[in-house]
Amino acid sequence: MSRNRLDAVLSAIDTNAETDLIGLYTLLRQPSISAQNVGIAECADLEAELLRGAGLETRLLRTSGHPMVYGEWLGAPGKPTVLFYGHYDVQPADPLELWKSSPFEPDVRGGRIYARGVADNKAQHFSHIAAIRAWMQATGSLPVNVKVLLEGEEEVGSPHLGEVVAEHGDLLKADLVYTSDGPVQDVAYPEICFGVRGMLYIELRAIGPNRDVHSGHWGGVAPNPAWMLVDALRTMRDAEGTILIDGFFDEVKEPTPAARAAMESLPFDTKAVLAHVGLEEMVPPTDLPWADRIMARPTLNIAGFSSGYGGPGSKTIIPSKATVKIDMRLVPEQTPDEIWEKVRTHLERHAPGVEVVRMDGGMVPSYTPVEHPMAEVVRRAVEQGFGRRPVDVPLVGGSLPDAAWTKTLGMPSFLVPYGDPEQANHAPNESYALDRFHRGIKTSAVLLAELAEAKRESRT
Amino acid sequence: MSRNRLDAVLSAIDTNAETDLIGLYTLLRQPSISAQNVGIAECADLEAELLRGAGLETRLLRTSGHPMVYGEWLGAPGKPTVLFYGHYDVQPADPLELWKSSPFEPDVRGGRIYARGVADNKAQHFSHIAAIRAWMQATGSLPVNVKVLLEGEEEVGSPHLGEVVAEHGDLLKADLVYTSDGPVQDVAYPEICFGVRGMLYIELRAIGPNRDVHSGHWGGVAPNPAWMLVDALRTMRDAEGTILIDGFFDEVKEPTPAARAAMESLPFDTKAVLAHVGLEEMVPPTDLPWADRIMARPTLNIAGFSSGYGGPGSKTIIPSKATVKIDMRLVPEQTPDEIWEKVRTHLERHAPGVEVVRMDGGMVPSYTPVEHPMAEVVRRAVEQGFGRRPVDVPLVGGSLPDAAWTKTLGMPSFLVPYGDPEQANHAPNESYALDRFHRGIKTSAVLLAELAEAKRESRT
Repeated sequence: MSRNRLDAVLSAIDTNAETDLIGLYTLLRQPSISAQNVGIAECADLEAELLRGAGLETRLLRTSGHPMVYGEWLGAPGKPTVLFYGHYDVQPADPLELWKSSPFEPDVRGGRIYARGVADNKAQHFSHIAAIRAWMQATGSLPVNVKVLLEGEEEVGSPHLGEVVAEHGDLLKADLVYTSDGPVQDVAYPEICFGVRGMLYIELRAIGPNRDVHSGHWGGVAPNPAWMLVDALRTMRDAEGTILIDGFFDEVKEPTPAARAAMESLPFDTKAVLAHVGLEEMVPPTDLPWADRIMARPTLNIAGFSSGYGGPGSKTIIPSKATVKIDMRLVPEQTPDEIWEKVRTHLERHAPGVEVVRMDGGMVPSYTPVEHPMAEVVRRAVEQGFGRRPVDVPLVGGSLPDAAWTKTLGMPSFLVPYGDPEQANHAPNESYALDRFHRGIKTSAVLLAELAEAKRESRT
Repeated sequence: MSRNRLDAVLSAIDTNAETDLIGLYTLLRQPSISAQNVGIAECADLEAELLRGAGLETRLLRTSGHPMVYGEWLGAPGKPTVLFYGHYDVQPADPLELWKSSPFEPDVRGGRIYARGVADNKAQHFSHIAAIRAWMQATGSLPVNVKVLLEGEEEVGSPHLGEVVAEHGDLLKADLVYTSDGPVQDVAYPEICFGVRGMLYIELRAIGPNRDVHSGHWGGVAPNPAWMLVDALRTMRDAEGTILIDGFFDEVKEPTPAARAAMESLPFDTKAVLAHVGLEEMVPPTDLPWADRIMARPTLNIAGFSSGYGGPGSKTIIPSKATVKIDMRLVPEQTPDEIWEKVRTHLERHAPGVEVVRMDGGMVPSYTPVEHPMAEVVRRAVEQGFGRRPVDVPLVGGSLPDAAWTKTLGMPSFLVPYGDPEQANHAPNESYALDRFHRGIKTSAVLLAELAEAKRESRT
C-alpha cells in the first residue's frame, strides 16, 4: 500500500464533497420508518443502488420482516475482509410540530444537516459507501475485501438479525466488523467502543378486584395490585439499590486488566455529562466511578409503573390492575435467557401472585477485548480521520445486536461513532455535523488502507 | 301523638304516590352537575320551591361555591328538632353511550326509576320533603321541629360545608341529624350507620433526570424516580401490609363494647360481597373479620402510581418523574391534620428526596355511639318503614363530611340509606327502586312521629 494511493483517495473525497452531500440528501428524502412500515422497500432499493454505484456486487437479503441490503467486493484475495454494518431504517418523526424544518427534507443550518435519520444512521453508513466509491474512483479497486450489510429493522430491535446471521454466516464472515452509529460521549474525543450491554425486558402484572373499586368501601378488604407490585419489587432490590434477585450476579465477568485500565483513563467529565440532564450527582453510592456503572454492573430499571389514577387532583379507588415495565442492562457474561430464568424463579418464590412476562428475546451483551490486534488498526484510522487518538471505551451503556458478530460468528467488532452528542437521535431536529460527515468518510477510507497494511505486517 | 294522626299521614303518602313521583321527575329532569357547574342555580331554585311547597320557611345559603338550600319549620317548641341533610348536585353522566335511557329523562323499567342522581341523592332527600308535605297536608303541622339542608357540592367533596357550619352553627343546631344517602349493603337488611371513616389524600412526587432518558446510556448513573417512590412506600408499609408510618396508630380508638357487639352481629355474607368484584378472599390476614377491616383499621391505599411508559410493548427509559396518589381511610379518633403531620415527618426522615403534597383538607372521621338514646328512635322508624328491624353499622368505609355535625356541632348523626345495592351511584344507568321510594317516604314520616314520642318519654 503506497501512501500515494491513499492520498489520491483522500483527494477524491475532497473533490466528491458536493456529490456526496447530494447522494446523502437523496437518501434522507426517502422516509424509511420501520415501526410504521413506511418507505422501507423504496429505501432498500435506493441503498442497493448506492452500493452498486460504489462498485459492490449487491443484493437484498430477504427476511420474514424488512429486507437487508448486502454488497461485497472480494477482489483482494489474501487480504483481510471488513464487514461494515449499518441500518437504513429510521425512527418515526413525531412529534412533527417540534421540527424546525421538515424531517424528510434535509436543511443545513449552522454547519449541521437536519433530517430524520441523518445521524441514526444514514450519514454514518453513507460515509462507508462514499469511502468505498472514492477508492474505486481513485484506484479502480479496494485494498482489502469489503462487505456491507444494511439492516432495515434496527429501530425495532433487529428481530431478524439473528436469523440472517444463522442463514448467511459464511457470507458475512470477515476479519472484523466495523459499525459507525450513535454519538461520541464528548465531541472533543473520538472513540472506539468495544462492546455493548445486553438487555432483558420484562413486565410485571398484578390483578386486584375485577374493576376499579371505591377505596372507602373496599379499602382494607380488596387487595391492591399496586401494592402487590411494590412488594414484588422490594424483593428484587434493596433500598440501597443492590439487586437481590437470586443468582443475578453469578455470571457477571470482571473487566479484564486492559479493560479496567481503559475505564480508568477515560477523559470524560462526568459532572458535565450529568448537567445535560439536570443532575448534579449520580445515584448512590456516589463515589462509584461512572465507568463501573456502565461497564461493570448490570441494572434493574423501572421503565414504567402504571396503576390507577394519574390525572390531576384526587380519585379514591383501589385499582383493578397494575403493570411495571422493567429493563435490565446486562454485562458480560450475563445472557437474557439466563437472567430470565433467574427472575422467573425468584418471582415464583417471592411474589407468587404476580405475573411476569418476557417482552422479547432480549439482547446478549457483546465485547471485543481492547487488546485485540485489530484494535490498533482501527485506532490508527480514527486518529487520521478525526485528528486525535481515539479513546477506548470497553463497553457502552446501550444495547445493540453486536453479539451476532462476536458470539455467533466469533468476529471482533468495533463501534466507531462518527456522530456527536448534539445529534438528537430519536428526537425532533435530529442533526449531523457537516465537518464530521467529511471526517467520517476519510476515516472509513483510511481504515481500508490501514487494514491492508496490517495484514501485510502480520504476515511478514 | 295519637296513632290516628300518623295513620292519616301514612294514608296521605299513599294518596300522594303519583304526585310524589311527578315531583321527583321534575327534579330529575333538571341536571345539576357540580363538577361541571351545569344547572346548579336552576336546581337550587327548584329545591327551594319544593321546600316552600312542603310548608318550610326557605332560603338559599350562599357560599363561595354553589349555594345550599335551607328550609325550616320550628312550630313545635319544646319538641325535638331534626336536621335532614341531603345534596341536590349529581355526578356527571358520562359515558353517555352506556346509558340505556337518557340520564336526565327518568325512565321506569322493572320497578326501578333510571336517571342520573335518582339514588344519589335526589329520591332519597325528596323522601324527607314528601314526608314533611304529607304531615302538613294531613295534620296542618309537624309533630317536631324540622330543618332541611341541601348541599350543592357533595359530589365535589363538600368544600364549603365547614364554612357554612361555622357561619350558621345556631341555625343548623338540632337534636339529631338524619341523612339518607348511599345504598344498604344487603337489600334484605335495612341499616342505620353511625359513622364514617375519615380520609387524608396525599401525593408523593419524585424527580429524576430533567427528561426521560435512555436507560442504556443512563442506567446505573441517573436516579430513577419510580424506584425512589417504591423505596419511600416500603418505609410506609411492610410486606405483610402493616403500616409503618411513625405514630400512625397513636390515636386509633378501639371500638366500644357496644360497637364491637354490633360489628360481630352484622349479618352480611362477606363471600357474596367479594364475589361482586371477582374476589374469593380478602387481603391477608384472611381471618381478620370484614367489620374490623372497615371499622377498626385505618388504610394506606395506592390510588395511582404513574411513571414512565405504560403503553404496549417496551420502551427503554429512565422516567423523568414519578407520582403516587395515596388515600388513607381514618378511623376514630384519627384526624387528617394529625396524620398529615405524621406522614410528612416520616417521609422527611425516611425518604428525604421525595416531595409529599397534601391534596385537600381531607375528612375527619365521625361517629355517633350505637348506644345513643336517639338511635332507638331511629331504629323504630326504620323498622316501621321497611318492615324489618335495621342492622346497626357502627362505621361505614366511605367518607362523608359527617364530622361537621358530630364534631363541630356536637350532634348525633344517623345515616339511614334508603337505596339498595343495585343503584349504580356514579355509574351509567343509576337507578332507584320504586317500592323503596315509597318505603323511604313512610320511614321519614314515622321518624317525625317517633321523635315526638321520644322527647315526651324522656321528659316524663
